[in-house]
Amino acid sequence: MLHYDNHGWSVTDTDFNVRYLGKTEAVMALGNGYLGLRSTHEEDYPGQTRGFFVAGTFNRSTAEEVPELPNLPDVVNMHICIGGQPVRLERGTYAVYSKRLDLRTGELVRQFKWKPADGKDVGFEFRRFVSQDDLHLIGASVTIRPRDRVSVSISSGIDGQVTNSGAMHLDRGVRRVWPGDVLSYRAATTESGVGIAINSAHALWLNGRRIDRSGIQIDRRSVSIRYALELSENDVLTIEKISNVYTTRDKTFANIGFDEYANAALKAAFVAKDRGYDALFMRSADAFMRYWKRTGIEIDSDEPFDQLAVRFAQYHLKAMAPAHDDRMGIGPKGLTGEEYKGHSFWDTDTFVLPYFMLTMPEVAKSLLTYRYRGLDGARRKARENGFSGAMYPWEAAWIGDGEVTPDFGEIDVTTGGAMRIWPGRLEQHITSDIVCAVEEYDEITGDERFMEDCGYEMILDAALFWSSRLERDEAGGRFVIRDVIGPDEYKEHVDNNAFTNYMAKFTMDLALATYQKLREQKPSLLKKLDGRLGFGAQMAQVESRSAGLYLPPPGEDGVIPENDTYFGKKAIDLTKYRRQTHVRSILRDYGPGQINELQVTKQADVLMLMYMRRGLFSRDVLAANYRYYEPRTLHDSSLSLSVHSILANRTGEFDAAYRLFRRASEIDLGPDRESSNHGIHAAALGGVWQCVAYGFAGLRVDGEALKAEPHLPAHWRSVRIPVTFRGTPMTVNITGETAEIQKDRVPDSD
Amino acid sequence: MLHYDNHGWSVTDTDFNVRYLGKTEAVMALGNGYLGLRSTHEEDYPGQTRGFFVAGTFNRSTAEEVPELPNLPDVVNMHICIGGQPVRLERGTYAVYSKRLDLRTGELVRQFKWKPADGKDVGFEFRRFVSQDDLHLIGASVTIRPRDRVSVSISSGIDGQVTNSGAMHLDRGVRRVWPGDVLSYRAATTESGVGIAINSAHALWLNGRRIDRSGIQIDRRSVSIRYALELSENDVLTIEKISNVYTTRDKTFANIGFDEYANAALKAAFVAKDRGYDALFMRSADAFMRYWKRTGIEIDSDEPFDQLAVRFAQYHLKAMAPAHDDRMGIGPKGLTGEEYKGHSFWDTDTFVLPYFMLTMPEVAKSLLTYRYRGLDGARRKARENGFSGAMYPWEAAWIGDGEVTPDFGEIDVTTGGAMRIWPGRLEQHITSDIVCAVEEYDEITGDERFMEDCGYEMILDAALFWSSRLERDEAGGRFVIRDVIGPDEYKEHVDNNAFTNYMAKFTMDLALATYQKLREQKPSLLKKLDGRLGFGAQMAQVESRSAGLYLPPPGEDGVIPENDTYFGKKAIDLTKYRRQTHVRSILRDYGPGQINELQVTKQADVLMLMYMRRGLFSRDVLAANYRYYEPRTLHDSSLSLSVHSILANRTGEFDAAYRLFRRASEIDLGPDRESSNHGIHAAALGGVWQCVAYGFAGLRVDGEALKAEPHLPAHWRSVRIPVTFRGTPMTVNITGETAEIQKDRVPDSD
Repeated sequence: MLHYDNHGWSVTDTDFNVRYLGKTEAVMALGNGYLGLRSTHEEDYPGQTRGFFVAGTFNRSTAEEVPELPNLPDVVNMHICIGGQPVRLERGTYAVYSKRLDLRTGELVRQFKWKPADGKDVGFEFRRFVSQDDLHLIGASVTIRPRDRVSVSISSGIDGQVTNSGAMHLDRGVRRVWPGDVLSYRAATTESGVGIAINSAHALWLNGRRIDRSGIQIDRRSVSIRYALELSENDVLTIEKISNVYTTRDKTFANIGFDEYANAALKAAFVAKDRGYDALFMRSADAFMRYWKRTGIEIDSDEPFDQLAVRFAQYHLKAMAPAHDDRMGIGPKGLTGEEYKGHSFWDTDTFVLPYFMLTMPEVAKSLLTYRYRGLDGARRKARENGFSGAMYPWEAAWIGDGEVTPDFGEIDVTTGGAMRIWPGRLEQHITSDIVCAVEEYDEITGDERFMEDCGYEMILDAALFWSSRLERDEAGGRFVIRDVIGPDEYKEHVDNNAFTNYMAKFTMDLALATYQKLREQKPSLLKKLDGRLGFGAQMAQVESRSAGLYLPPPGEDGVIPENDTYFGKKAIDLTKYRRQTHVRSILRDYGPGQINELQVTKQADVLMLMYMRRGLFSRDVLAANYRYYEPRTLHDSSLSLSVHSILANRTGEFDAAYRLFRRASEIDLGPDRESSNHGIHAAALGGVWQCVAYGFAGLRVDGEALKAEPHLPAHWRSVRIPVTFRGTPMTVNITGETAEIQKDRVPDSD
Repeated sequence: MLHYDNHGWSVTDTDFNVRYLGKTEAVMALGNGYLGLRSTHEEDYPGQTRGFFVAGTFNRSTAEEVPELPNLPDVVNMHICIGGQPVRLERGTYAVYSKRLDLRTGELVRQFKWKPADGKDVGFEFRRFVSQDDLHLIGASVTIRPRDRVSVSISSGIDGQVTNSGAMHLDRGVRRVWPGDVLSYRAATTESGVGIAINSAHALWLNGRRIDRSGIQIDRRSVSIRYALELSENDVLTIEKISNVYTTRDKTFANIGFDEYANAALKAAFVAKDRGYDALFMRSADAFMRYWKRTGIEIDSDEPFDQLAVRFAQYHLKAMAPAHDDRMGIGPKGLTGEEYKGHSFWDTDTFVLPYFMLTMPEVAKSLLTYRYRGLDGARRKARENGFSGAMYPWEAAWIGDGEVTPDFGEIDVTTGGAMRIWPGRLEQHITSDIVCAVEEYDEITGDERFMEDCGYEMILDAALFWSSRLERDEAGGRFVIRDVIGPDEYKEHVDNNAFTNYMAKFTMDLALATYQKLREQKPSLLKKLDGRLGFGAQMAQVESRSAGLYLPPPGEDGVIPENDTYFGKKAIDLTKYRRQTHVRSILRDYGPGQINELQVTKQADVLMLMYMRRGLFSRDVLAANYRYYEPRTLHDSSLSLSVHSILANRTGEFDAAYRLFRRASEIDLGPDRESSNHGIHAAALGGVWQCVAYGFAGLRVDGEALKAEPHLPAHWRSVRIPVTFRGTPMTVNITGETAEIQKDRVPDSD
């Protein structure tokens, strides 16, 4: 169970439980968009999952596997013995345990007193941060205070034996020990050849006096140094471990050899070590404070959890975003776990990007540029599937990789066979989702430069894909889209998924409007684009197909069918699965093939459409669909709850809106101690921010203006949302039903 | 600290110490020459090293690394929770702990009572064996006896996340769960493409009633099943886990697809499960007893450790020997650890083979055939180095691989640079060592068929290598051998290493004699060999070079110089390093370059020569060299002590002989709790048997007869050594100074 302070600035665990280590490893993970570090303990425990990822370093561990972010050599480890006994909380006894993540400064602090079977207790304090000032840097510090004479040994190193659950991504590499207790580890990824340089610089003080290492230890793929000394009562021992990581994917790496670059990284480690933990941490904390000043939502309410939930979301949104490099995206777990391999899904464009569009548009631009740089791969995918234009990969890794969704997943419980993973081929709505994000970015930022450089081309090429993708329904004389997967992934191989069809039409219509606009306003740009895409020659076809595309209409009851066969499927009692504490409990009773035949929806699908294409549907239609689908939805995706919360607010179901916001927040912060084992839920966190900004505050763009139609939860007195709209920093202040949007005097630049 | 029973049949640990897990993992390892299994615990501990190896399955984990035996998916794991608490000995409290390896039957038994923080104690008994009857089979059984009502959950699986210290050798593979609680894991090695099929069949009984699984768990590269149930006082819960492993390196795999083979393995797992642990174990134990009957040395003395030490050696010699396949050798750690990668060094031919020659000649023949099958690689190595004939690899893996010694090792403590590993190029005596083993095998077995098929060709081709390798010393008008490493690996790049030169001459002279003999006795065989090797055409050169080869003579004091410069090097006080509890302590003070310049010897070198070419030197010369070199020797190789023990016995230093035998035994069985972390010491174990057979019993071949010139340690009353000499099973009975060699009536066939 996690605790939080009354001001919503920290998450604390006071209950060390070795069965649920994954929870705080992930929710308290540190990161800065360049690197992510799971908050594992210095000491080892069975079941602990070390995790250290650098954005963009994709590699295939074997030829048959898709690229993923390698789990890099671990620098967190530090093994301490007191009187020859390894300090581990499963041994001896401990007291006053706490592990706390300070969201304001990004510092992780762990404290406890530990007593070996025979001896007095020893006080421990561990501090750690990932720098927001120097993206390559990780600081750690340990203080040990004995209450008796004891011998202490500390072994600390760089451990390259870690893997992605057994998959190894690095070659053997070179490890060295340098004078001054600095360790270095250089290696390259096995297939993509990305050079990785990791350094750890150590300094140990006994009562303020520097002590040198006692020895070193070299093992296969690991190197460590060892300190051994005798402490007396009242002694204070402090060890600082300043680590850094550089890779040849860095933009600062260019035209020099890896060794030269790694040598510079080594020098940087020496310099950082001389600065010391405190000075390095202060610079990082400063950068974090500027972030909070620029983006931090403030909620005045009687429920401090709500404030914490939004801060927690914003903390991780910063930690996951590779703002430094527009060749990189964001995975569903950010940089906090190996699951989903660091690939970019629609999660980023639909759930995470809106946050950055309205708070740090330069980050949104970087993430959209990543999609633009992926156009080649998208065109290749379209060609390979027999289509034109750009068919974006369902899962994207490095910009040149194209589609990287694995073809097969884990075994099916009921049949024992490996499950075919269809989304890579069938979940085609991703192409529209990206276009939708481009349009939203355009609307919010008015960044014409980006539209000219990237946005227009993305829109036009996506429309060419859809136009070629539509199938003529001979009987009906219309166009249809057969054999897809919509957002409801329980339903594979469906025809006319409403979300997919409506979004395809949106994409084609936006492209047609864009083409008209460019013809009138930017003929030379259009000429260039037309030379590249040939849209003009196909415009008539796009137009007639868009006009002929079947859009499943609302029935008499106002409900739009999720797909052609949904209404014909059997409805079952979902009560037990909806009350589940872990998601996916339905899979224990039904195989995927069986679920395909039930009126059960994994996550918002028709409702998702109503969220994304707000203007298309009346409030009555929205309400009818909400009433129909929500009870049939298991929210078995972390993307679902926040959308439902926002729509519930719109339909006036205010209690449900707050309840769903709360549930969305609890995906990571709630009592399920295993929900975050594989990492935090990036889309859910983006959704939590959207619940406040687009739900309770009711923000929306109206032409050139930002407007607010708030309806705050009853126990919220006020909320303050810093945003940047059309290049201007503003603050949205809402008190009760009153909204005020105030332009800030000086634009922030950080 | 290990204990042993008074009859020398078991090794027991009663002191669970999580810091020294490696000791019993290795010394209590199970194996049958086909597979080896480190005796890790069912539960997980930090620092525990799972190890599961199948002979001959070599693979390169990355292109830059040499082939090694992959650490296969683990089948030992079984995670038990009592009342929701993981059963681990660092948690709660435990009592009456014992872990015992029964050498007679090969069964590992672990027992303890464990009490969670809140509850009554629960009795546990774990049993495990690797079958000597079915080489593919591993049996395990766990019994749980609560003294109160408790909930129990057991999770057991096949865990493919294990690596060789981070190096992964298998592709992703396919895991399945079959009805009847059987798990399967199929994968292939990444580079060599060896298919691996592992199955684990489970059966759980509560008071004799079968209970089915409660669920399954699939993770990346792992699959497991889970049982959950409530126990009452006096309940007895037993779970059996019968596992097997098959690979496409098996001789029984031929001309069928891997899937078909793996399906047969799966069927075998179902059949084995139906037989059950007890029946399977009895068949295995029977096979072990036959082994002891055929080979077991029996010592009557007041010191039971001596009996234990020899049994322990014989236990592991059986466990390591791939008697089933003459394409496989034996690594320095057998199949008990990843160190040395499972490669065959001279350890096998010089230290392990003599045991099998005199006890199980068919195994010795298989191991020598492995060398014969490596001739192509040896010829390739000779060619690549500019020589003729067969230059055997210093390290050998799969038969076609040739030289697989890595070129670089770990970093040098003093310079930080990676150390060049020279033995692959310079430690050339391996070629003579193999010829020496062939001659010894011939002498002991009289196996003319092997000599015709393999032995003569190996001898002749080795001599052609040496003849081409010798260098003419222009000044001295003689032949020399420059720039080698002898058995004393502290000395790199030496000229005229006495061991190397004398052994080269032995090889050439043996070839010349062989050629003469074949010319007289087997002209048609000779014709065939000459067609292949062209020895006849080069015979005159071999003859003149052998005659002209410089053999460092004894000086006035009788001492032979280890190499040209040894006597000129500085002597230092070695006392502190000779008193070391861990070997290689000298490396903390001196880098390899510095040790090169000191009169310090790693292991027997000149003395090794006197052991291997016994007839060449008088007892006085032997004594002089023993007195000179032994004090300069650190025994920093596990190969050294037994040779010194045997020579001490010959020079009449009987107390030293026993002391050195004891120290050799203690390499694995002694108080150093870290000496065996990386595996048992195969050569030392072969040496322990040689200490008894060739040392204390003084066995030697005299023409067509086996003779004994015993000198037993003072506290030994008698010793009984079963041998097979020239195809005839015999028993050597020694009582005091009296030896009797008795032919057994019926030759054993197993």
